[in-house]
Amino acid sequence: VINASLLGVVREAGKHDAIESLYGARFGIDGILAEDFVDLSIQPRELVEAVSRTPSSALGSSRREVTKEDLQRLLAIFERHNIRYLFYNGGNGSMGTAWQIAKLARDRGVPLQVIGIPKTIDNDLVETDHTPGYASVARFFATAVRDIDADNRALRNQVEIVEVLGRNAGWLVAATSLARVKDDDGPHLIYLPENKLPLHKFLTDVETVYRRFNRCVVAVCEGQLDEAGEPFGADVRGGSRGALAMNLGHRLAMLISQNLKLRARSEKPGLLARASSLTITDSDWREAYDVGRFAVASAVQGETGKMVTLIRSSETPYEVTYGLVDLQKVAFIERIVPANWITSEKNGVTNEFQAYALPLVGEIPALPRLN
Amino acid sequence: VINASLLGVVREAGKHDAIESLYGARFGIDGILAEDFVDLSIQPRELVEAVSRTPSSALGSSRREVTKEDLQRLLAIFERHNIRYLFYNGGNGSMGTAWQIAKLARDRGVPLQVIGIPKTIDNDLVETDHTPGYASVARFFATAVRDIDADNRALRNQVEIVEVLGRNAGWLVAATSLARVKDDDGPHLIYLPENKLPLHKFLTDVETVYRRFNRCVVAVCEGQLDEAGEPFGADVRGGSRGALAMNLGHRLAMLISQNLKLRARSEKPGLLARASSLTITDSDWREAYDVGRFAVASAVQGETGKMVTLIRSSETPYEVTYGLVDLQKVAFIERIVPANWITSEKNGVTNEFQAYALPLVGEIPALPRLN
Repeated sequence: VINASLLGVVREAGKHDAIESLYGARFGIDGILAEDFVDLSIQPRELVEAVSRTPSSALGSSRREVTKEDLQRLLAIFERHNIRYLFYNGGNGSMGTAWQIAKLARDRGVPLQVIGIPKTIDNDLVETDHTPGYASVARFFATAVRDIDADNRALRNQVEIVEVLGRNAGWLVAATSLARVKDDDGPHLIYLPENKLPLHKFLTDVETVYRRFNRCVVAVCEGQLDEAGEPFGADVRGGSRGALAMNLGHRLAMLISQNLKLRARSEKPGLLARASSLTITDSDWREAYDVGRFAVASAVQGETGKMVTLIRSSETPYEVTYGLVDLQKVAFIERIVPANWITSEKNGVTNEFQAYALPLVGEIPALPRLN
Repeated sequence: VINASLLGVVREAGKHDAIESLYGARFGIDGILAEDFVDLSIQPRELVEAVSRTPSSALGSSRREVTKEDLQRLLAIFERHNIRYLFYNGGNGSMGTAWQIAKLARDRGVPLQVIGIPKTIDNDLVETDHTPGYASVARFFATAVRDIDADNRALRNQVEIVEVLGRNAGWLVAATSLARVKDDDGPHLIYLPENKLPLHKFLTDVETVYRRFNRCVVAVCEGQLDEAGEPFGADVRGGSRGALAMNLGHRLAMLISQNLKLRARSEKPGLLARASSLTITDSDWREAYDVGRFAVASAVQGETGKMVTLIRSSETPYEVTYGLVDLQKVAFIERIVPANWITSEKNGVTNEFQAYALPLVGEIPALPRLN
């Protein structure tokens, strides 16, 4: 839903005389440094609306780790183009960069107002109830696990591992719990990376479920680590956001086959989950749009060095309002799932988590079954 | 859409006095042998309708390789329960079993009529234009590749492998070609298991695309083999339908990283693609329903030892009619993609394939992009 925020920014910017032109940086920070801009003011209104419904960033993203030299070049570019407002969309790393830019501009007396627009499917930003992008991808995974569970039920005699995005935070994998209605529904086991998972504990859990139901569906986060803090022997790739296993689900399926002699396989929707156009929810889209508008309105009112936050103002019916928080308070900080939202057995989530997630993700209707 | 065929059978059976009761075998052939039946006659009409829209087999499936003793036990069970009609739903292996049952019944003079109902997402049955189930899963993969391509475009500097179902037949992976509109759209490379793929050829193809677009999206079938007839060093699992690689996409991504020093990753929607409730197409559902009805109507008219076929009676507008073929002609035979529907470079498909697939899968609309 990142492009819904883009639409919000475009729409709101059009209302304020203080903003004469609006540029989109191609491929994020790389685009600013390369002065590679898209003139958003001249895009047809219907096109920006149509783009707002598409997945992935229409402007492009960057993996760049911003250096001190980069920061200085950025300020020079902003001054040269008379860029007075910067709207920076992303997760806690992006908020960190936005904060560094805002701080340097203030220290140098450069007239630049910086507002962070939260967007991460991982939902791992502090100081906000949740982040745009989370609900749609959570819905993708909950629906996926429900459907894969039906397949596993039809075939039985098989252990099925579904690998879920989320890196070090279990928000997405926890949301697969919304697929469970009846006792024998999957996911039977849900592992959050907030806790290390000893291999023997994993194998015992799977065997227990399998003995009971003759099958087992497991949801596991891509960032899950074993008791030694290692990803169970999976292949690992480093990146700007730290090392991450590439094939954790497969590795776990192999360990089940080898140790328990059970038929096991794994599915890894992977980036499809964040890129899918099939489960963008209306409320996630709307919130992303509103967050974009709120960012521009706040900047025009003189705010800077802040990130827009979502505040759950009512539980029933679910309602949100928007606020601001200092970028410094969210920069580079990862928000994980609270320990008391995870069951004592550490293979599922509590009702508190479900109460939190259900209004965001929406109900996942159970598939009807023959009597 | 297998449950749409079930609905078709239930509805049509209800119209014929010759059929007094209708039983569903739980977990396929295992359910017959265990005499584990669901009485379909007493299921609420609305429930069977609701179930017909769900993915995976509501009755369950089996991986059993049927033995001679099984066949004899089956006939005895049919006689004991006065079962006179058998409707057998599945792919070429299932049609083989259905044929064996029909033959033995005829040889023994057992009054049993056997009709095969085609259903395989792999689309690898001969003597029929296509099989129910194919279109919906083809649509899933084409949509998935289009969306993953948008993600790859936004991030760039990355090779993305999407692993596609289909075993030894490239019908599904070929359908991802429907996601391509413009020259720079993915999938840039499509590999069909009909041809062996030398590793050096694969690497050269990827490097060529990457040099041109600074990124590359590859669609590869799970059953793809290298020049030695091996799955590139992937882990392999045996099963009733032969050996199959479990992590081919990941293995290919590793080979790209190692040999080309490019950033590469893989996604494997896997069983989610066949289980997903999100892309069941109306026409696939309708054809599956009609095939079920046609099977019952044919049996009541005295047909046996036949499979229902889909015949494309008109190209524009696309229309199908239904026919029958001897089970013997489809039993255990795999239909692969014709050689002249694959490009001479063996990394894509020709217009002939697209003309075949488009009416089944439907257009995959291009995602709008900013100017």
